[in-house]
Amino acid sequence: MKTAESNLTSRQRFLAACRGEPLDTPPLWIMRQAGRYLPEYRKLKWKHGFLTMVKTPELATEVTLQPIRRFGFDAAILFSDILVIPEAMGQPYHFRDEGGIGMDFPIRSKDDIDRLDTSGIRERLDYVPGALKLLKRELDGKTALLGFAGSPWTLATYMVEGGSSTHFEKLKELFYGNRALFETLMEKITEAVVNYYRMQVEAGVDAVQIFDSWGGACAGGDYEAASLKWLRRILREIGEAVPVILYAKGLHHRIDELAKAGPQVISVDWTADLGHLRDTLKKPVALQGNLDPVLLNTTPGIVRQETGKILDAMKGYSGGHIFNLGHGILPTARIENVEAIVETVRRS
Amino acid sequence: MKTAESNLTSRQRFLAACRGEPLDTPPLWIMRQAGRYLPEYRKLKWKHGFLTMVKTPELATEVTLQPIRRFGFDAAILFSDILVIPEAMGQPYHFRDEGGIGMDFPIRSKDDIDRLDTSGIRERLDYVPGALKLLKRELDGKTALLGFAGSPWTLATYMVEGGSSTHFEKLKELFYGNRALFETLMEKITEAVVNYYRMQVEAGVDAVQIFDSWGGACAGGDYEAASLKWLRRILREIGEAVPVILYAKGLHHRIDELAKAGPQVISVDWTADLGHLRDTLKKPVALQGNLDPVLLNTTPGIVRQETGKILDAMKGYSGGHIFNLGHGILPTARIENVEAIVETVRRS
Repeated sequence: MKTAESNLTSRQRFLAACRGEPLDTPPLWIMRQAGRYLPEYRKLKWKHGFLTMVKTPELATEVTLQPIRRFGFDAAILFSDILVIPEAMGQPYHFRDEGGIGMDFPIRSKDDIDRLDTSGIRERLDYVPGALKLLKRELDGKTALLGFAGSPWTLATYMVEGGSSTHFEKLKELFYGNRALFETLMEKITEAVVNYYRMQVEAGVDAVQIFDSWGGACAGGDYEAASLKWLRRILREIGEAVPVILYAKGLHHRIDELAKAGPQVISVDWTADLGHLRDTLKKPVALQGNLDPVLLNTTPGIVRQETGKILDAMKGYSGGHIFNLGHGILPTARIENVEAIVETVRRS
Repeated sequence: MKTAESNLTSRQRFLAACRGEPLDTPPLWIMRQAGRYLPEYRKLKWKHGFLTMVKTPELATEVTLQPIRRFGFDAAILFSDILVIPEAMGQPYHFRDEGGIGMDFPIRSKDDIDRLDTSGIRERLDYVPGALKLLKRELDGKTALLGFAGSPWTLATYMVEGGSSTHFEKLKELFYGNRALFETLMEKITEAVVNYYRMQVEAGVDAVQIFDSWGGACAGGDYEAASLKWLRRILREIGEAVPVILYAKGLHHRIDELAKAGPQVISVDWTADLGHLRDTLKKPVALQGNLDPVLLNTTPGIVRQETGKILDAMKGYSGGHIFNLGHGILPTARIENVEAIVETVRRS
């Protein structure tokens, strides 16, 4: 049974899709929609810098709203960063001159882990509910408000490697070489992430996304112990309160396992064949994704065509569909191509 | 029926595995086994430089044999580089100071493609049969000799982007924006790759590997048109002559499609669960892989344990198994960990 859409706000349509209700046209948002491809974002960032924007509720609110004003997306995602969690636990970070993230020091030993402080999370992340409350007021129930956090495994890659990394050698060394210490660290990160989500829920988010951006780098037999186990714990703690969208890059071959863990929505990357997933899913779950972000560097004609293919593949799917990219929008994306997505999805 | 192994050479065991015959212990080699983790390799490279080693049959032979002497691997893979093909077509390359590969110029237009010269391939790649013939003599039928090339899509990423790249924007722009021109380029690359494999077969290789290292970056619905279609053509042309091993990174969720294309062996990356693949394969095919290369930075104990898990998962598989890593060995790998793999596989 389709919901009578003409009477629904963007927020209601978004939440209906999260509940797995089919709609005439899918709700739409874009990962990293408040980002460098927007001239109004670049202007603010040039003036204030990334971390100040994250930590100042008025600026975070303004940046979060920029893409909503411009494109009328159905969901606004809080402008923030997954690394605010390690920072709030006492491990600050910075941007490396050569690109990528550097943590001020890596977490490697039992002592390092013991020093991570989960008790101060709420106080140190106070600016997050600050921004969410402002956003709640501005959005006025019309647009869905999303919170997010990184998965424990994904956060651990930065924390243990000491920043951005390609092979995750140190974290894997810990995982294979000292499982007990790995688990001590993961317990602590998971606790912090759960607390952080609770803060977001209390501040009024309509749904949250979990970014398991690096879970796909785990060895095949070890994804459960390395990442999924901890995701499941978060889903258990938070999934009752608000819908949870699980973004798991490079992991769509495990979609049945992921669906079993209980997220309301699974967000898949661009390498998945959405039509194939839809047809082979064992347990129905709402699907989000999966346009290749690189397409936004091409032309509106190409974007319309490829957007149309995803819409066609999902037409009539009874489990819920949210249109999005398969990964964050690139800084080089062209505005006219984002407009082409919006038009194509809305006209579908 | 198991082959009586005690009478077989490494080469015979390797070829038996390629034919899908079960063996008591799998033959073993390691992707990029002639590489920077070896002190004897670093010494030669410091003296001569990478490209000189590739292009001088005596040096390529020496480097190819180094890991065979040290570890007694069952297969020797010619020391070379996938980018010798674009170079032989008239598009030279170099190593960028900041890391990665730079092509001297990118291939973007119809004119650029027209200028690519496939007729001079044999002459310009003369050093390859030169090295293979020397190797053939040295190996004396005891160790399998492997040739290789990059897949057309993977080669095109370097050729069109102008070197190493993260998002493959220009190639995707060509693929989505001008399919006819994309196909003109792919026809030309495929022809060159087929010719190159023919040279390798004539020079006496026992098997060849195709590296579709970047096929996994294609959008889900487009892998067929972007990469698999061209691989199939190569498999048709070469698969009769020698066994073909298809390494397809980030593509194990498509293993049935890949198997259908006809390679004798599929080499899977470390993110696959080999036991699961083995049990769900629709068409039996020999499997190669998939130890996480990062493990070779840890300890022999960990390496023995994880090697043992792969051996256990493949025990009794009736379709053929070749032990290998899930990706090329890292320069930071420890020799004692390679030794731990060799001991564990041989003792199994």
